[in-house]
Amino acid sequence: MSADDERDVRPATSSGSSRRSFLRGGAAALGGAALALGGRSAWDAAQATEAPAAPPADADGRATVPFRGPHQAGVDTPPQSFAAFVALDLADGVDRDALIRLMGIWTDDVDRLAAGKAGLTDTEPELAQVPARLTVTLGYGPAVFTAAGLEDRRPSWLRPLPAFDVDRLEDRWNDGDLILQVCADDEVTVSHAVRLLVKEARTFTTVRWVQRGFRRAPGTTKPGTTMRNLMGQVDGTRNVDTGVDPGLVWHTDAAGGWLAGGTSMVVRRIAMNLDTWDELDRAGREQAVGRRLADGSPLTGTAEHDEPDLEAKGPNGLDVINPIAHIRRARTENAAERFLRRAYNYDDAPGPGELSASGLVFVTFQADVDRQFVPVQRKLDEADLLNIWTTPIGSAVFAVPPGARDGEYLGQALLEA
Amino acid sequence: MSADDERDVRPATSSGSSRRSFLRGGAAALGGAALALGGRSAWDAAQATEAPAAPPADADGRATVPFRGPHQAGVDTPPQSFAAFVALDLADGVDRDALIRLMGIWTDDVDRLAAGKAGLTDTEPELAQVPARLTVTLGYGPAVFTAAGLEDRRPSWLRPLPAFDVDRLEDRWNDGDLILQVCADDEVTVSHAVRLLVKEARTFTTVRWVQRGFRRAPGTTKPGTTMRNLMGQVDGTRNVDTGVDPGLVWHTDAAGGWLAGGTSMVVRRIAMNLDTWDELDRAGREQAVGRRLADGSPLTGTAEHDEPDLEAKGPNGLDVINPIAHIRRARTENAAERFLRRAYNYDDAPGPGELSASGLVFVTFQADVDRQFVPVQRKLDEADLLNIWTTPIGSAVFAVPPGARDGEYLGQALLEA
Repeated sequence: MSADDERDVRPATSSGSSRRSFLRGGAAALGGAALALGGRSAWDAAQATEAPAAPPADADGRATVPFRGPHQAGVDTPPQSFAAFVALDLADGVDRDALIRLMGIWTDDVDRLAAGKAGLTDTEPELAQVPARLTVTLGYGPAVFTAAGLEDRRPSWLRPLPAFDVDRLEDRWNDGDLILQVCADDEVTVSHAVRLLVKEARTFTTVRWVQRGFRRAPGTTKPGTTMRNLMGQVDGTRNVDTGVDPGLVWHTDAAGGWLAGGTSMVVRRIAMNLDTWDELDRAGREQAVGRRLADGSPLTGTAEHDEPDLEAKGPNGLDVINPIAHIRRARTENAAERFLRRAYNYDDAPGPGELSASGLVFVTFQADVDRQFVPVQRKLDEADLLNIWTTPIGSAVFAVPPGARDGEYLGQALLEA
Repeated sequence: MSADDERDVRPATSSGSSRRSFLRGGAAALGGAALALGGRSAWDAAQATEAPAAPPADADGRATVPFRGPHQAGVDTPPQSFAAFVALDLADGVDRDALIRLMGIWTDDVDRLAAGKAGLTDTEPELAQVPARLTVTLGYGPAVFTAAGLEDRRPSWLRPLPAFDVDRLEDRWNDGDLILQVCADDEVTVSHAVRLLVKEARTFTTVRWVQRGFRRAPGTTKPGTTMRNLMGQVDGTRNVDTGVDPGLVWHTDAAGGWLAGGTSMVVRRIAMNLDTWDELDRAGREQAVGRRLADGSPLTGTAEHDEPDLEAKGPNGLDVINPIAHIRRARTENAAERFLRRAYNYDDAPGPGELSASGLVFVTFQADVDRQFVPVQRKLDEADLLNIWTTPIGSAVFAVPPGARDGEYLGQALLEA
């Protein structure tokens, strides 16, 4: 396991420091051929087919994911097909008591919705009847701690990420006082849950931003294979498994801190420049990542989950895996720096003169942002071939409280301790 | 069969002529109680559950819908879960020859994509491997006929709809020179197809608007039951069946006109005011439509597909189905005025101060817009209780050419005849 294959990668735009960080990293090694226009021949190279899919485990949308427990659902839950990320800002005057009331309302709503039941004030109860593995994952921005008068309990990493050279952040996608990650295998279910939860919070919060994302429909991808992003790449190989490495995700605090059982969540909106990506031929694309497009196998291996051989040399004596291929740069030698990725594709309407406006809502969970996420991101910021075609345009960090056990409300360990 | 239950309904805003048309129609009959705030009790009333679902027919996303044939697919195809409606404008200088070239490119792309194969210039061929019942349906706006020098072949109904009192149209959702309706049961498939088709047309067109829509995931709704919109209503009961009434949808021309086998497409973007809808109790909601929320049955019947009894009186001597209930107003006594509806939900990010921005991409197909769509819309514009909560904010009309048979390209009967 490694943090290999992160898609939270830094772009180089055509000028300025990002371009320089790309060049500094050794772009020359990519070679001119790979940058040549290669779209016309790309399909010829794609003979491999995706693995046949297994029938979906939840053919009728009635499957549920337990809400109650030591951890919130939606973190190590196998990703559902649809997600809405809703960032909210606290209204003026919301204090600790008000937060406790809001948490009580949301806890009850999520408890019901996740079981396929309507919320207590649900005005469209029929829309609640297809849970489709619904999970709602709540996170706190820094302002929650200020509002609650609990600054001393704010994790040190709960603040905006450090600035990266490749960032071109737009405030409309940044930060937030609260986040709701709402995921399900049915988009009507997601929409209904978001509507209810936002409505219930109307006197406490306003919507700051909403990001929607999607993956393949359930059943279309063989279990154990990895989703593809809209650049066509297998995205998320070698992810953290909380069954093997729970400490990489779940916060443990020997002193019994309120975040024990919780985690942190980073949401980065990564725009993909599919038009310049299209100018790259298939070999160039594979070199940029270090994996084959057909099956996600490393250029030194034959299957997606093969360990890449970073020392391998080609007949010309050059590295088989480019010195600044994403697979190499995203890899950390420090096993404690790995983190869980749970990304979704987005595809907005293109602006004037654009052909598309697609990308990735890159979402990660880790016990400690500063110890895990930031060092890997710094390395990618310094050099990563993928930076040429990808640009972070939004960034937000949240503390994810532990799960609510029976009789508890979300955030109780923070707000009542 | 009737045009009953259209959701393309006219709103009354709080002032002006739309409000007047609502009042003129007899709003007093609704009664004050129905307008009282009733959200808190709504869930109590919802005991009925949706029918158990059947397993999806296409569990692994490999099902295909034939592209070649006398009609285009995506019209009477059972609606897939996702849709993108992409309106494009022709670039300056596009003439008949250029249109023929574009049609050739698109025909080949759609032929391949619908079969689960990559397009000839497809740079992400792996994303083509899950067709998931992909259909692409092409339509022409008026400008195609001008550009091609074929004004004499433009159907008389191919122009913007007449103005309705309830309309609050925004130009960003109106009109278009071409439309691509791209539908599949997998949102990645839709996204990939849109990207390829828009890219292939880049020298001929620019994107004017994109509307995305969704329905329940495959398998979650029992075959024969009807989708729900985000107001919670069963939406689309008593639709036209082209197996029974082909002439209501497919254009037939005894003279052998180019549109034989084609149809017309109306795309109306209908915003729903869910906040004021929430102020209505369950009885009021059912009265507005004339159907029960739990199962879509008419207020005079017991099952969704029961025929409503429009003459039935209650114990108080009043009509059981309100004089301006949607079900009554949308019903036409002229069987030739019925049309096929194929709507999708939308759920945008709310604007500042809003809780949600949801609605319906209301899509209809009919042989003749002026003979079928317009008369029903006029009646709804005059009076329909649903007008209080719904507002058309976009409108576009297209001529949908017949299907491409083997060896033909889309639009060939128009462009080469």
